[in-house]
Amino acid sequence: MNRHARPSNPSLGSFDFQVTQTSHEVGVSGRCGVLSLPHATVETPVFMPVGTQATVKAMTPDELWEIGYRLTLGNTYHLHLRPGEDLMARAGGLHRFQGWEGAHLTDSGGFQVFSLTGLRRINEEGVEFQSHIDGSKHLFTPESVMEIQRKIGADIIMVFDECPPYPSTYEYAKASADRTHRWAARCMEAYNASGRKAAGGWEQALFGIVQGSCYRDLREESAETLIAMNFPGYAIGGLAVGETLENRNAAITWCNALLPLEKPRYLMGVGTPIDIIDAVQRGVDMFDCVLPTRNARNAQVFTARGVLNMRNAKFAADFTPLDPYCACNVCRRHTRGYIRHLFQTNEILGCRLTTYHNLYFYFQLMAHLRDALREGTFHTFRTAFLRDYQRWEEEEDTGENQGS
Amino acid sequence: MNRHARPSNPSLGSFDFQVTQTSHEVGVSGRCGVLSLPHATVETPVFMPVGTQATVKAMTPDELWEIGYRLTLGNTYHLHLRPGEDLMARAGGLHRFQGWEGAHLTDSGGFQVFSLTGLRRINEEGVEFQSHIDGSKHLFTPESVMEIQRKIGADIIMVFDECPPYPSTYEYAKASADRTHRWAARCMEAYNASGRKAAGGWEQALFGIVQGSCYRDLREESAETLIAMNFPGYAIGGLAVGETLENRNAAITWCNALLPLEKPRYLMGVGTPIDIIDAVQRGVDMFDCVLPTRNARNAQVFTARGVLNMRNAKFAADFTPLDPYCACNVCRRHTRGYIRHLFQTNEILGCRLTTYHNLYFYFQLMAHLRDALREGTFHTFRTAFLRDYQRWEEEEDTGENQGS
Repeated sequence: MNRHARPSNPSLGSFDFQVTQTSHEVGVSGRCGVLSLPHATVETPVFMPVGTQATVKAMTPDELWEIGYRLTLGNTYHLHLRPGEDLMARAGGLHRFQGWEGAHLTDSGGFQVFSLTGLRRINEEGVEFQSHIDGSKHLFTPESVMEIQRKIGADIIMVFDECPPYPSTYEYAKASADRTHRWAARCMEAYNASGRKAAGGWEQALFGIVQGSCYRDLREESAETLIAMNFPGYAIGGLAVGETLENRNAAITWCNALLPLEKPRYLMGVGTPIDIIDAVQRGVDMFDCVLPTRNARNAQVFTARGVLNMRNAKFAADFTPLDPYCACNVCRRHTRGYIRHLFQTNEILGCRLTTYHNLYFYFQLMAHLRDALREGTFHTFRTAFLRDYQRWEEEEDTGENQGS
Repeated sequence: MNRHARPSNPSLGSFDFQVTQTSHEVGVSGRCGVLSLPHATVETPVFMPVGTQATVKAMTPDELWEIGYRLTLGNTYHLHLRPGEDLMARAGGLHRFQGWEGAHLTDSGGFQVFSLTGLRRINEEGVEFQSHIDGSKHLFTPESVMEIQRKIGADIIMVFDECPPYPSTYEYAKASADRTHRWAARCMEAYNASGRKAAGGWEQALFGIVQGSCYRDLREESAETLIAMNFPGYAIGGLAVGETLENRNAAITWCNALLPLEKPRYLMGVGTPIDIIDAVQRGVDMFDCVLPTRNARNAQVFTARGVLNMRNAKFAADFTPLDPYCACNVCRRHTRGYIRHLFQTNEILGCRLTTYHNLYFYFQLMAHLRDALREGTFHTFRTAFLRDYQRWEEEEDTGENQGS
C-alpha cells in the first residue's frame, strides 16, 4: 500500500490492439501483443484477476499493481446488485469507486444469470431472474446490460450472451447460439447509440462472444456471424463448464482459425496453468479465472512443483517458502509453517498471503509465456514447466506412502 | 508489502530505557523516552498493536512497519496452544516465525487464563485450565510461563499474575495480590536462572505487574513489593476490567507516584484514545489494546471527529475519505462509500482497510502526544482533541434527529 495518489483521471487514450510477434514454432499459433485501453496498456497474452464485487478478494489495488497487473475483471451481475450501477456512476465509475488506477473489463452477467438455481425465465427479450441475495426480481436484456456496463465504465465490456450448459443437445446449442447472435446485434446497436463511450466519457470496447458448445459447425457459424458485426474484440465463451480438455482445445482451435488475427481473443473463465499454456499455444490473448484467488482462500497454492495445500500437517515445521523458485514478497518473507499456522487459526493474513502469491505465480507464468513466444522457445518452456509441475505431485505421493 | 529481506538477525542490543523529556506543565506527569530493545528502538509513550496468534489480525508485517510500528504484542496463552512454543523455538523465535523485523512483548497468559469460563483451578502452584480450542488440560505456573516466554523469545516478557475480577472484595484482592507477588518472585528466579536470555540468545526484559484492584493501600503495597525485586520495567495490571474512569485514573496515579522514574511503565489493555491521553498525562509509557483492530473488523473507524460505523447506510454515497484529517494510505485512496460496500458484501478488504486506518490513527495519536509533551502543549492538545473527537458525535446526533 505504498503507491498512492496516482492521477485519477489521466488523459485517456483509445482502444487499440497490435500483434507484435507471432510464433514461428511448428504447432504454435501463439502471439504477443500490446492491448491499449483508456486506463492502461498491457502486454498479451494477459491474465486478468477476478474482482467480482469491486475488489479482487483479499487484495488491495496497490498489491495488484505491485505484482504487475494493470487489467482486472468485474462481474456485472454482482455489481448491479451491490452497490448498483447508478451509485458507481456517481462515484465516477468502477475505477474510481474501487480506487484502481488500472483498466477494467466487465463480463455481461450472462454466465452468472444462467448459473442461478432460483427462478429464471429466458425469452427473446432477455432473462428475468431473482437476486441470490434477497430474492428480488431483475430483468437483464441486451440493452439493459449495455446500459449497466456503460455506467460501470469498464474499458472492455461484453455482449449479453447465453452460456448453455454442458452437455447441450445440438438443437439446444444451435437455438441458444442463434439467440446469442440476435442479442449481440442488439448490444452492438445500443453500444453505437451511446457513442461507444462510458458514462464517465472514455471509450469502451465491446467484445462479441462466440458460443456453440462443442459442435464444430456451430462454433464456426458463431464466429463468422460475430465477425460480420465487426466487434473490437472477440471472446470464446461456454467453455470450462465440464467438457473434456480435448473438446475444449478443439473448440479453441476452431474459433481461432476464423477470428481475425488483428483483434484480441479472450478465453473466458479459463483456467489452470496447463489450460492457459494450451490456449496460448492456440493463439488466445486474454484470460480470467477465479482459480488463483478462490483456491488461495482454501489454502491451495500454485508452485513450480504443483499445487500445495497449506492445511496439510506436514508443513507445520516447514520453514521454507511456499515456492522456493518464487521471488514474490510472500516467499521472500514467510514460511510454509507460518502460513499453515495462519490457516489453522483462521487468521485473515493466511488467505492474504496465499492470494498474493498465487496471483504473482499467474503473472509470472504469463510473462514466461510471452518470453517463450518472443524467443521461439514455447515448446521448451512448456515441456520444462509440465515436467516440474507434475513431478512434485509424484514425489509427494511417494513421500506420503513412505511416511505412513 | 514492499519492504522485504531486511536482515533477520542484526547485531542485537540490550534492554535500556531513557527518559528524554519530562513535562513541566502543571498537572501533567507525562514524559517522553526511548526504549531500546534487542529487535527495535522505540519512542515512548508507545502503543503496541495486539498480535494474538503471531499476526496482528488482517495486517502484514510490512504494513505495520510502513505505519511506523516497531513493537507489537503477542499472547502467550494463544501461542502456547497454537502453534506451541517448541515449534516457535525451532523457527528461531516468534520474530522469525512471524516474519517481523521489529520487537515483541508477550503477556504472561494470566489475563486469558483467568478469563476462561471452563474448568480453571487456581492454587499456590499455578493455574490448571482447559484449552478453549479442544478442552485439553494445561498447567501454567510461574516457572512454566517463564519457560514458554523464553522459547517464544519476545524482547519484553511479563510475570505470571492473577488479574482479579472487578469488583473484588478487599480480602480477595489482597490475597490475590500477595500470591501474584510470590509468583513474581518465582518468575524472577526462573528468569535469572536462564541468564535473562531468550532461547534464541538475545536479552529479554522481565516486567513486574502491579495489582491490588482499586484499593489504594493494596496498589501501593504491590508497587513497593515489586520495586524491591528490581524488575527492568513495571506494568499496571487489573484495569480496564469494568472500573470507573475515576477509579482507573486514581489507580494509575497511585502506582506511578511510587514506580521508579527511570523505568518504563506499561498500562495493560488500555484503551480508547481518551483513556490513553489520560494515562499519558499521568506518566504511562506503554500501551496495548485490541480496540483499533477488533473494532475495525466490526466496521468501526477512529477519526479526529470520533468513531464512525461504516455499515451505516448514510455512508453509501459518501465519496470522502474515512477521516478527512488523516494522511494514511487508505484515506488517500479509498472512500467511505467504497468501504461501506466492502462491509455490505463481506469482503476481506473491508476490514483490511479499516484496520490499517485505525492503527495509523493510534500511531499518529501517540506521535502527537509525544510532541505535546516535548513542546509543553499537552493541555492544549488534549483540549483540542477532545473538542473535535466529541463534537462529531453531537453533530451526528443532530443530523440524524433532523433527518428522521
